[in-house]
Amino acid sequence: MITAMEEALKKGKEVLHLGKVATYIPELGRANPNALAIASCTLDGQITQTGDVGTRASIQSISKIASLALAISELGEEEVFSKVGVDPTADPFNSIMRLEMRKPHRPQNPLINAGAIVVLSILPYPDSTSRYLAVLDLVRKLCGNSEIVANEKVYLSEKATSDRNRSLAYFLRSVGAMDGDIEDILDSYFHQCGIECTVKDLAVMGATLANDGINPITQEKVLSPRVCRLIRALMATCGLYDGSGEFAVRVGIPAKSGVGGGIVAAVPGKLGLATLGPALDNKGNSVGGIEAMEYLSEKLKLRVL
Amino acid sequence: MITAMEEALKKGKEVLHLGKVATYIPELGRANPNALAIASCTLDGQITQTGDVGTRASIQSISKIASLALAISELGEEEVFSKVGVDPTADPFNSIMRLEMRKPHRPQNPLINAGAIVVLSILPYPDSTSRYLAVLDLVRKLCGNSEIVANEKVYLSEKATSDRNRSLAYFLRSVGAMDGDIEDILDSYFHQCGIECTVKDLAVMGATLANDGINPITQEKVLSPRVCRLIRALMATCGLYDGSGEFAVRVGIPAKSGVGGGIVAAVPGKLGLATLGPALDNKGNSVGGIEAMEYLSEKLKLRVL
Amino acid sequence: MITAMEEALKKGKEVLHLGKVATYIPELGRANPNALAIASCTLDGQITQTGDVGTRASIQSISKIASLALAISELGEEEVFSKVGVDPTADPFNSIMRLEMRKPHRPQNPLINAGAIVVLSILPYPDSTSRYLAVLDLVRKLCGNSEIVANEKVYLSEKATSDRNRSLAYFLRSVGAMDGDIEDILDSYFHQCGIECTVKDLAVMGATLANDGINPITQEKVLSPRVCRLIRALMATCGLYDGSGEFAVRVGIPAKSGVGGGIVAAVPGKLGLATLGPALDNKGNSVGGIEAMEYLSEKLKLRVL
Amino acid sequence: MITAMEEALKKGKEVLHLGKVATYIPELGRANPNALAIASCTLDGQITQTGDVGTRASIQSISKIASLALAISELGEEEVFSKVGVDPTADPFNSIMRLEMRKPHRPQNPLINAGAIVVLSILPYPDSTSRYLAVLDLVRKLCGNSEIVANEKVYLSEKATSDRNRSLAYFLRSVGAMDGDIEDILDSYFHQCGIECTVKDLAVMGATLANDGINPITQEKVLSPRVCRLIRALMATCGLYDGSGEFAVRVGIPAKSGVGGGIVAAVPGKLGLATLGPALDNKGNSVGGIEAMEYLSEKLKLRVL
Repeated sequence: MITAMEEALKKGKEVLHLGKVATYIPELGRANPNALAIASCTLDGQITQTGDVGTRASIQSISKIASLALAISELGEEEVFSKVGVDPTADPFNSIMRLEMRKPHRPQNPLINAGAIVVLSILPYPDSTSRYLAVLDLVRKLCGNSEIVANEKVYLSEKATSDRNRSLAYFLRSVGAMDGDIEDILDSYFHQCGIECTVKDLAVMGATLANDGINPITQEKVLSPRVCRLIRALMATCGLYDGSGEFAVRVGIPAKSGVGGGIVAAVPGKLGLATLGPALDNKGNSVGGIEAMEYLSEKLKLRVL
Repeated sequence: MITAMEEALKKGKEVLHLGKVATYIPELGRANPNALAIASCTLDGQITQTGDVGTRASIQSISKIASLALAISELGEEEVFSKVGVDPTADPFNSIMRLEMRKPHRPQNPLINAGAIVVLSILPYPDSTSRYLAVLDLVRKLCGNSEIVANEKVYLSEKATSDRNRSLAYFLRSVGAMDGDIEDILDSYFHQCGIECTVKDLAVMGATLANDGINPITQEKVLSPRVCRLIRALMATCGLYDGSGEFAVRVGIPAKSGVGGGIVAAVPGKLGLATLGPALDNKGNSVGGIEAMEYLSEKLKLRVL
Repeated sequence: MITAMEEALKKGKEVLHLGKVATYIPELGRANPNALAIASCTLDGQITQTGDVGTRASIQSISKIASLALAISELGEEEVFSKVGVDPTADPFNSIMRLEMRKPHRPQNPLINAGAIVVLSILPYPDSTSRYLAVLDLVRKLCGNSEIVANEKVYLSEKATSDRNRSLAYFLRSVGAMDGDIEDILDSYFHQCGIECTVKDLAVMGATLANDGINPITQEKVLSPRVCRLIRALMATCGLYDGSGEFAVRVGIPAKSGVGGGIVAAVPGKLGLATLGPALDNKGNSVGGIEAMEYLSEKLKLRVL
Repeated sequence: MITAMEEALKKGKEVLHLGKVATYIPELGRANPNALAIASCTLDGQITQTGDVGTRASIQSISKIASLALAISELGEEEVFSKVGVDPTADPFNSIMRLEMRKPHRPQNPLINAGAIVVLSILPYPDSTSRYLAVLDLVRKLCGNSEIVANEKVYLSEKATSDRNRSLAYFLRSVGAMDGDIEDILDSYFHQCGIECTVKDLAVMGATLANDGINPITQEKVLSPRVCRLIRALMATCGLYDGSGEFAVRVGIPAKSGVGGGIVAAVPGKLGLATLGPALDNKGNSVGGIEAMEYLSEKLKLRVL
């Protein structure tokens, strides 16, 4: 395992120069574009990692998995999917056009920004803080790490600059796709996006999802098998924004990326896999991470597709 | 296996009344909406089937798998995917809008009509007949059945009524996304859509794709492992038109549907699975087929996602 | 004149039952759907009016004419039209899709909401109040009525419910089409929409525009001839939202409507004409007003197209 | 008049280098980009012309006026406008996206290609030739010139290369917006686009439209006043493709352009005006023609907006 991972790291490092760190949130622009780390966690709890394993990064869109899982666990599938679809999309993550074209104006899926915001809006918590803390708690359980917190600078930087997300949220409320206090809902969205993890944390999260909801480190039953399957299906079809199709072809494993540079992947019944590398391709996915995952998927025969 | 399949058949039959047969091609409207058949083929060649197993139906969009596999095998991935994307889409199968919006005007993926037509246009055959025969030959090999032919009535009915596909093709040529003789290219498209299979044929096709290209009945090496993976990845993300996301959630297996009522699914390394039932949901997928596959996926633990 | 106007009023009253008052702003829903008034103002200052002439209504989108005229007068055409186009559109007034599709993301014209918001954002005033007061001042001069003020209830009702306009504004800022403090800019937008006029006020406004900028009542030179021509051209091509084409065919005079129920029309070199009737058609234009204007245009040979 | 026209010609010639001749139809690419001619025709029949007055060019989209006028005259407004809208549009002339988005799928207006094709499809003539001859006859009457014929090379060149129009036509039929034999309908479309006129012919056409349908040269009553008004209203709002808004602002007269380089304008009750110059701007309108018309409109106070 470690040999394959070191080879994968080398492959990934070779393409880092093709990417660049996210700049639309000022604070993200300070990340190190040369960093890359890889970790795996087997379902019996063995963790292997290599590269810049000390790097922490905000999980950004990876947090959408947690808030979605929380929503389904608390409200049920029917309620959640009456508000948001499960349709793959080749639109960029922050596209608004589709929302206007679709009737009813329901976000295509819960992994695009509009969908994630709607999911947060229906969570049964009274305010931004309690909503955020519930998501944070689930992230910690998925990762088996109770020390995880958000990076306040990233959170506040995002909150200060997120015109597009505000536009999406106001649009959604204007067409009846969502209710509630926009700034309060967005505050928890920005906050959960700022949650910081290491590559090891992400690998454990992947393993928990691969293990039908039982954290292989803590043995805690974090999610139901059904919720995990659902999350994995969405990861497979729309986990990497408009790069989802290419990832399915190249890597063939359910995964979710974030613009902080993380990718978490779940090989059902087998393994959690994660990469962390802030240099992104033009679709917002870690260039080195995808390269490394492609190598590992082939080498270790991890493809499920 | 047979017990599970009979239960699945029962489940599927119960929802047939929710669907209706395709009518946009007059000849398809004559199919029996009450028919439903299920078949599986293991990688050691064991075939099990139940229901209306004598039913034949045109494979329609399932043929896109064959023409794509043929194109990649003959021209290479790079050539093919310079003309057509691998992006999932939640647009209906015959949408034209996207083509105009995207720059360059490249079809999103080879499984929507526009993409399939472009793929046919680049196949290195001199005319409609030779192009069609090459696809037919591959379908026969995938299914291990050299008796397979097209239903002439369906083919001609489709050719006579396919304004939308003509519109797509002329649009594609007008924006430089495709060259060649439109009617000649479309003729082979309509012809391959009319190829008729039984549910058993489709199950063997699924098994060949699941078996990395080696037909488990004939032992012939029909496709390379790499082509099979690529096809399976596309099936998983966009194999059921705008119902692909829901299918991934409910069934979790790479599959491709056709408006003739067939669905072919490939569980990598394990099994080919197929259903045939002409009653379709509003997205053009077999209602009974999806229901039966969902049951079998759960019962036999076939999910890969 | 008065006879023709009374006949026009009768015609207009007959169709009022086909419309309904705007409800998307709660306060607008309290308007009287049975009210209809008509007024004209010749270029030598003769005013004729009939119907429910005591009715006041908020001018809503008619205010866009004033803020645009102000912007061009203060900043010049070049500056204004580098930020907003002059393209007619058949999109609804609050559509956002176009903004995403167009590159650069410039609103099509200054009479749709997005365009009007951008225009306000570039006005050289330090805050919402001073910006609003400048627009109010111009409206008063156009109408020759220094008593005109906004209806505070309408203004605040609009401010409290305008999710779509907030969505548009945040979108515009997110794509660099606009700078500034969103709530501050929108506050002046909502405020100017709430300015209340009588039908007579609107007729004088029309006459001032028809008279190349000289108010025929006060003799004040309010706008330059060139600004008036430009405004009239925009009124002719996109003054009635997606009903502009039909209005050009039926009435053939440059005009601007508002969802408060007003329509102001300018027959260049001849006449200002206005109607006020809160019952709207499904495009947001006064049903009775259009009917009456069509009658008058024909009867008094006012068409310019 | 002649002095103003000579000045206008000079102005127009100065900007010809900014344009280029249409190349999407090969035969059009052979036009002389340096040619420019201007003509006017008063309602008492006085013709003035200057510049390259011997130049002939195919009228292209200007022919849409004739086929629309023919359709309304023969079928009535209600019938025609049940098939095609009167909505201005800022889309390019050959856009297909809108057709898919609009429900019902009715072309926005009769001056975009899709709308013109639908109009031809409902004309009560048995075949392409009789349909074309009826349009040709009307063009001759509008221009008062019975010698007018089509340029066969342009017609056939267009017929051989018009993938986009075929795409539009098949799309329209596929959604039920149009019936009939596609190639037969398109043949008359290509044929009428190829009709060749001089600038004088176009000026007389403009004068006939300005004169409510009575040709000021032949005194023949060619169209009803109502049809002329309707045509002029459409010219004002969507006569110059996506350059219609800018033309309304700069020139302020109802006009229709064609990619052959012609522009015909109608000042109601006053004058017909035409320019002919094959160098086009990026929206497909004659650069020199627009410049000259702007000058004349200002100089001779011809604006109606």
